[in-house]
Amino acid sequence: MRLPYVLLDHAAEIDIGLIGVPWDGGTTNRAGTRHGPKQIREMSALTRNVHHVTGVRPYELANCADLGDVNANPVDLQDSLAEIEQFYRSVSAKGIVPLSVGGDHLLSLPVMRGICNGRVIGMVQIDAHTDTNAHSFGKHKYTHATVFRRAIEEGLLDPRRIVQIGIRGSLYDADDMDWGRDQGIRIITIEEFHDLGLSEVVRIAREIVRGDPTYLSFDIDALDPAYAPGTGTPEVGGLTTIEAQHLLRGLRGLDLIGADVVEVSPPFDMSGNTAIVAATMIFEILCLLTEQLKGRKR
Amino acid sequence: MRLPYVLLDHAAEIDIGLIGVPWDGGTTNRAGTRHGPKQIREMSALTRNVHHVTGVRPYELANCADLGDVNANPVDLQDSLAEIEQFYRSVSAKGIVPLSVGGDHLLSLPVMRGICNGRVIGMVQIDAHTDTNAHSFGKHKYTHATVFRRAIEEGLLDPRRIVQIGIRGSLYDADDMDWGRDQGIRIITIEEFHDLGLSEVVRIAREIVRGDPTYLSFDIDALDPAYAPGTGTPEVGGLTTIEAQHLLRGLRGLDLIGADVVEVSPPFDMSGNTAIVAATMIFEILCLLTEQLKGRKR
Amino acid sequence: MRLPYVLLDHAAEIDIGLIGVPWDGGTTNRAGTRHGPKQIREMSALTRNVHHVTGVRPYELANCADLGDVNANPVDLQDSLAEIEQFYRSVSAKGIVPLSVGGDHLLSLPVMRGICNGRVIGMVQIDAHTDTNAHSFGKHKYTHATVFRRAIEEGLLDPRRIVQIGIRGSLYDADDMDWGRDQGIRIITIEEFHDLGLSEVVRIAREIVRGDPTYLSFDIDALDPAYAPGTGTPEVGGLTTIEAQHLLRGLRGLDLIGADVVEVSPPFDMSGNTAIVAATMIFEILCLLTEQLKGRKR
Amino acid sequence: MRLPYVLLDHAAEIDIGLIGVPWDGGTTNRAGTRHGPKQIREMSALTRNVHHVTGVRPYELANCADLGDVNANPVDLQDSLAEIEQFYRSVSAKGIVPLSVGGDHLLSLPVMRGICNGRVIGMVQIDAHTDTNAHSFGKHKYTHATVFRRAIEEGLLDPRRIVQIGIRGSLYDADDMDWGRDQGIRIITIEEFHDLGLSEVVRIAREIVRGDPTYLSFDIDALDPAYAPGTGTPEVGGLTTIEAQHLLRGLRGLDLIGADVVEVSPPFDMSGNTAIVAATMIFEILCLLTEQLKGRKR
Amino acid sequence: MRLPYVLLDHAAEIDIGLIGVPWDGGTTNRAGTRHGPKQIREMSALTRNVHHVTGVRPYELANCADLGDVNANPVDLQDSLAEIEQFYRSVSAKGIVPLSVGGDHLLSLPVMRGICNGRVIGMVQIDAHTDTNAHSFGKHKYTHATVFRRAIEEGLLDPRRIVQIGIRGSLYDADDMDWGRDQGIRIITIEEFHDLGLSEVVRIAREIVRGDPTYLSFDIDALDPAYAPGTGTPEVGGLTTIEAQHLLRGLRGLDLIGADVVEVSPPFDMSGNTAIVAATMIFEILCLLTEQLKGRKR
Amino acid sequence: MRLPYVLLDHAAEIDIGLIGVPWDGGTTNRAGTRHGPKQIREMSALTRNVHHVTGVRPYELANCADLGDVNANPVDLQDSLAEIEQFYRSVSAKGIVPLSVGGDHLLSLPVMRGICNGRVIGMVQIDAHTDTNAHSFGKHKYTHATVFRRAIEEGLLDPRRIVQIGIRGSLYDADDMDWGRDQGIRIITIEEFHDLGLSEVVRIAREIVRGDPTYLSFDIDALDPAYAPGTGTPEVGGLTTIEAQHLLRGLRGLDLIGADVVEVSPPFDMSGNTAIVAATMIFEILCLLTEQLKGRKR
Repeated sequence: MRLPYVLLDHAAEIDIGLIGVPWDGGTTNRAGTRHGPKQIREMSALTRNVHHVTGVRPYELANCADLGDVNANPVDLQDSLAEIEQFYRSVSAKGIVPLSVGGDHLLSLPVMRGICNGRVIGMVQIDAHTDTNAHSFGKHKYTHATVFRRAIEEGLLDPRRIVQIGIRGSLYDADDMDWGRDQGIRIITIEEFHDLGLSEVVRIAREIVRGDPTYLSFDIDALDPAYAPGTGTPEVGGLTTIEAQHLLRGLRGLDLIGADVVEVSPPFDMSGNTAIVAATMIFEILCLLTEQLKGRKR
Repeated sequence: MRLPYVLLDHAAEIDIGLIGVPWDGGTTNRAGTRHGPKQIREMSALTRNVHHVTGVRPYELANCADLGDVNANPVDLQDSLAEIEQFYRSVSAKGIVPLSVGGDHLLSLPVMRGICNGRVIGMVQIDAHTDTNAHSFGKHKYTHATVFRRAIEEGLLDPRRIVQIGIRGSLYDADDMDWGRDQGIRIITIEEFHDLGLSEVVRIAREIVRGDPTYLSFDIDALDPAYAPGTGTPEVGGLTTIEAQHLLRGLRGLDLIGADVVEVSPPFDMSGNTAIVAATMIFEILCLLTEQLKGRKR
Repeated sequence: MRLPYVLLDHAAEIDIGLIGVPWDGGTTNRAGTRHGPKQIREMSALTRNVHHVTGVRPYELANCADLGDVNANPVDLQDSLAEIEQFYRSVSAKGIVPLSVGGDHLLSLPVMRGICNGRVIGMVQIDAHTDTNAHSFGKHKYTHATVFRRAIEEGLLDPRRIVQIGIRGSLYDADDMDWGRDQGIRIITIEEFHDLGLSEVVRIAREIVRGDPTYLSFDIDALDPAYAPGTGTPEVGGLTTIEAQHLLRGLRGLDLIGADVVEVSPPFDMSGNTAIVAATMIFEILCLLTEQLKGRKR
Repeated sequence: MRLPYVLLDHAAEIDIGLIGVPWDGGTTNRAGTRHGPKQIREMSALTRNVHHVTGVRPYELANCADLGDVNANPVDLQDSLAEIEQFYRSVSAKGIVPLSVGGDHLLSLPVMRGICNGRVIGMVQIDAHTDTNAHSFGKHKYTHATVFRRAIEEGLLDPRRIVQIGIRGSLYDADDMDWGRDQGIRIITIEEFHDLGLSEVVRIAREIVRGDPTYLSFDIDALDPAYAPGTGTPEVGGLTTIEAQHLLRGLRGLDLIGADVVEVSPPFDMSGNTAIVAATMIFEILCLLTEQLKGRKR
Repeated sequence: MRLPYVLLDHAAEIDIGLIGVPWDGGTTNRAGTRHGPKQIREMSALTRNVHHVTGVRPYELANCADLGDVNANPVDLQDSLAEIEQFYRSVSAKGIVPLSVGGDHLLSLPVMRGICNGRVIGMVQIDAHTDTNAHSFGKHKYTHATVFRRAIEEGLLDPRRIVQIGIRGSLYDADDMDWGRDQGIRIITIEEFHDLGLSEVVRIAREIVRGDPTYLSFDIDALDPAYAPGTGTPEVGGLTTIEAQHLLRGLRGLDLIGADVVEVSPPFDMSGNTAIVAATMIFEILCLLTEQLKGRKR
Repeated sequence: MRLPYVLLDHAAEIDIGLIGVPWDGGTTNRAGTRHGPKQIREMSALTRNVHHVTGVRPYELANCADLGDVNANPVDLQDSLAEIEQFYRSVSAKGIVPLSVGGDHLLSLPVMRGICNGRVIGMVQIDAHTDTNAHSFGKHKYTHATVFRRAIEEGLLDPRRIVQIGIRGSLYDADDMDWGRDQGIRIITIEEFHDLGLSEVVRIAREIVRGDPTYLSFDIDALDPAYAPGTGTPEVGGLTTIEAQHLLRGLRGLDLIGADVVEVSPPFDMSGNTAIVAATMIFEILCLLTEQLKGRKR
């Protein structure tokens, strides 16, 4: 993005901070998302200043800055969770709304730990997978497939204020989605997405999260692999980029306290198009965040 | 797929056999589908156990096995046709329903020779091309572009019980499709597919093949090259993967005596996504075959 | 295309000439379209003789020839503009309708200079960008982003007879499109395209250009990068190839005096599919040109 | 190469003809060499007019032409062998020395059948493999791994006048090379190549083929895969391009009646460098052929 | 390799076991070696039965089997170290000499823990890096850059019986190699390798490890990136494959109690050639192991 | 490199400045070097702090900084030449020794115009091509193939103090090198390089440029395409990276007033290895520059 680079320690008066989390320590299959932030930053040179539909000018509306990359490492998972959480505690303490660029989906957990400050928040999750498994490989509690089960258990997320959109793909067990549904999560599979239509999906999502503090999590594998091949667990039959853009634009005015775009894996993104798609979605979300901030400031 | 590997000679009590046909001896342009079975097997690790829409559990409903690869070779076409036919005669003799992974489309001919046992069968063919040319290069009778003309001439297929869906692309001659239509084949071009809508196409297809023995042939080039670039004769303007999935799910309950997924060409599939798409379609078809088998067993 | 190669100096009785313009001297970001004509010619071997929907047989209806490549060079922009203009003056003098293959979009300017002969023409532009910037980098007047501003200023194009379809992407300034709209250009953004529907877009386009001399300019980046990744300035959320094909078929019967397909960049087209898409669009346009020519000849 | 394209039927006064054989019908593992001639022609644009060491100007010394591609097909091996042989009979009848571009190595057999005219010739073969297997897959007589056994059996090649340079790689059986050695072939493995040194290898090669009619066959897999990755059966530990160039320059003055460069497989040549290497070797050989021709004419 | 697949639990009378360790939990920069074993197995189809220089027939000399992949996971480093160690304890208990395929270099640590059984062994390490750092990122003790420091500290390796060949590349600190040299490790940089010559390097290596139990560790990045680009930390200016082959052949007759080939990373190995190179080195090592075993059995 | 980023306007006390010139306006064939500086900066993360042979610590010996990219554009050649010259005049005025990263080779001309300040300098040029053509395409004076002819004509370079190493490849005309040799340039072709041996080449180079002000220009195509495929005009049969490293180390102690590494073209560098090679060479040169500066300061 066309953002000034600011060290967190020197960040003052920043409204929205773009933060890279070059870490794939929670990835159970094809690694590589640790290189996501770098490639997305590079490709973001193709985005410009004004949203062509909403007319939002994010860099004028708010004080945006690139806060650089969090210090995480691939060889010690708990250490990285702690490092990320600590970084986001500081971000939160400075009143900065974080827009994170992954890295794998497990990063949402330490981010939420860092910014919730005792609040139990809602979430709009655009994703192919629910990421609410009990564990991975039968024993590991912290992976990108268990992240939101952990966040619910830790009291960070209110499951009745979670909507998951774009879910699909064959299941390990017939009851894979039962736990989430039992908790109260509203799961909108890709089939239901097409049955309901985009407007109705937007209406449902807004109804679920309402005006309370909400996190927006965008897993790039929500998109069909034709649009976003560069990811670790591609799932056939997903959203088009246009559908995703309209979905995001439908979230204007929500109380978003943070957002992330995750699971872009450059080693599997030979044309670089997945990073371009991710940069476009980040721009859409940045416009959401700044517009809402402006509304709040008034 | 998550299947045990069983040698055909030792196969007992197998209901459905996944069979690789690593052979592109009938390919007239860009070769490479001989590597298809290997890559699709590899990518099939991304599929799981339960169909997320129909709830079918193929590995519980039926005794499924991977019967390995047929012994074919690229340097002697007639010899390979004979080898493949012989293999499928044995498969058929053991009462196994074959789900074949190509390889180029010519393989459907020896497969049908091996499993028809005197029956004249119907076919649902999802494809960009009719593959009913009289010959290729003006003289060659056995290629992937002539396969179903040969199968009709040999009395294996009943043309009035064939429906071809997704046909498109410029023609060699204005009468390219006349022979097929004269025989009674129902050709649904991609334009007609969009005009009729998916439900009506499904209705027509079911009406044509009815409850009699039917073969399902899925040429990966039926899909748009954006979704499945790794094929030898890509044809712009095709099906999306979601359309193909809904089409397949519309075939539940037919009397399918065999199926194939053909023309995946790894050397032209740089991201590996075509193989993932193929594995997903194979899983969809496997669920069709097992569900129907269970129905029949009752 | 399956065309005889004819040197322009020896071209007699040619109705439609395919012309390569291997030049990216107007490209401001990622170069590479200079290799477009070669790759598209190669991939055009996959097109055949008859349009499968309209039944048009271009090679029978008109005398088509491949006139080879224009002599342009990447190290002297004004020299190249002059070379291209001169070539098209000769093409025009021989009564040949040019179908150009780029190269970057700046080539449309010298082509129009060469073929307008004092006429002020209309244009159907299928594109992600309006290409009517005042300048690039604050000072350069001749680039692929300013081409149609220059053509309007030079009196080659009548802005009230221009329709731009598929426009999208974030803007440099909120007033990026104001100049064009003030001139009378009808801009149909991708969002408006989806709101109006394809038939209505076709109706509007025809209403704007009417039966007067019209140029057809197809920038491959009008298509979504999933369908056409090999281009210098990909813009997420574009047309599908099917939409583009239907759009082109909607232009039958217009008075097209020339056309181009531009911005295919082989170094960014790893699978070669963008070139296949371009060849398909060229075939669609060739059918338009020959059908209309035949109508006129009667 | 910078050669005029001449149809064989119209070829008069041609000394040396470059001929493409886009055919991989004899390939037992990874296909793709059918696309070799096209890619090598394209990359040959990077070669120029004068040899920088020998000073030979091939296009001035001899009348060189590109005779286009032989008509071969991948679906009928014996038919293709006959087509190729017939083409080369015509080439030979017109007194043209053929420089062939493959295609797989089996093409050397019909070429020799076409040009030997009863002569029993010698051969310098630069290759990783001897290609003198009795058969492939236990039964197939005509493949790229058996080609020179067949040529010897047919009395086309005199085994005592064959030298094979660069042979390496693990063997199927310990006696794989025994047949060849028993016939009198001088096999210089890569290990022996390094022990003897380049000058001594050149001396031996010249001693073996002497001044009698000799064929030069260059399999691109003679080179190490680091230099020429785009081939079907890469063999680690091969020649560098500099070694190959010096080897070829060591063959000046021999009585070469034909030559080929084979086994370039574009689908496995992602960077295109293998085709550039092949074009360079073809230029080296073209200089050999023209220089010798000039010597003979005197 | 052409090996029967045997489950470790059922392994009886096996002399040499090929074992995959699909794990990159110790990788600090570009991940991906977890996919190494799969790709190397696939490419190993290009190796055959007999060593063409030594004449060794590994599959006849010894009872070789593919023992499959160790169960490791990317989300818990200590758990994986324990799993790998346990597996190799069983391998060792059955008297099987393990030939491991990585995976990243950290795997050598649990392998040595599993097979040393109280012995302090020597090592021939062919590598670009010494892998004897004190820690990575200032605090992490277990990574692929610290592995042999840990092994020495744990008393598994005798530093005076370690020779490291091919070391190169800029250093973090001037004293990076001091610790190792102080321990007694003989470091042969690539510069010294070229100064001494291959024979002298072999002589030194044999002198250092002598006839006592020795481990052979081959990091693919010892090779120049031109020969083996598919690795996480490529280092310019390395060994050629021929040099590596001769180096390995120079180790005949040593008392090798295990060996590994590590750091092949398929996501960075676009042509697949690095895996072919690795498979070739594995074949060379397999011949070493079987030949020595045969010697010992006598 | 691990360098602080400093804006030129704020640069004080900087000894050596790394400068990107993202410009390929002088490229006559395959463009793409405009992306070179970005990719090389990215890959330079793999270099470290201390030279492992000379022990030089560049970041301690001198005050090094990354001065960012020069402002150049691809659509106006003369404008870019002026921009680059102006930038280097400022660099020179501040007493900074520039180490430039291209971009195409034409950039050496404006760099020399900016830093020569009336001096006539010598040059060590490591390159496959002499780049002393009179013009390109018969009329264009300023391209990457004419750059040093222009620099000599402008009195920037003393031809008798120029040595060109690694020259090779077929010629346009037999007298291509005559002009340079007539001027007094010492051309060492790759063949002569191998005949003389590396030490003698180093001795000759030092003898020619002596202790007077000298520029070092490293064209990445001096290296063999196996080592550096990512370039616009690859030339088979070049230097290995080890040879290039030893060549550079042979230049210690010369009076180098500037250096560049040019012609890295990321679109043709699929594995990224060419950029890694370039970063390694830049590190070697940085060590040369800092060591000499330290010597001078004393």
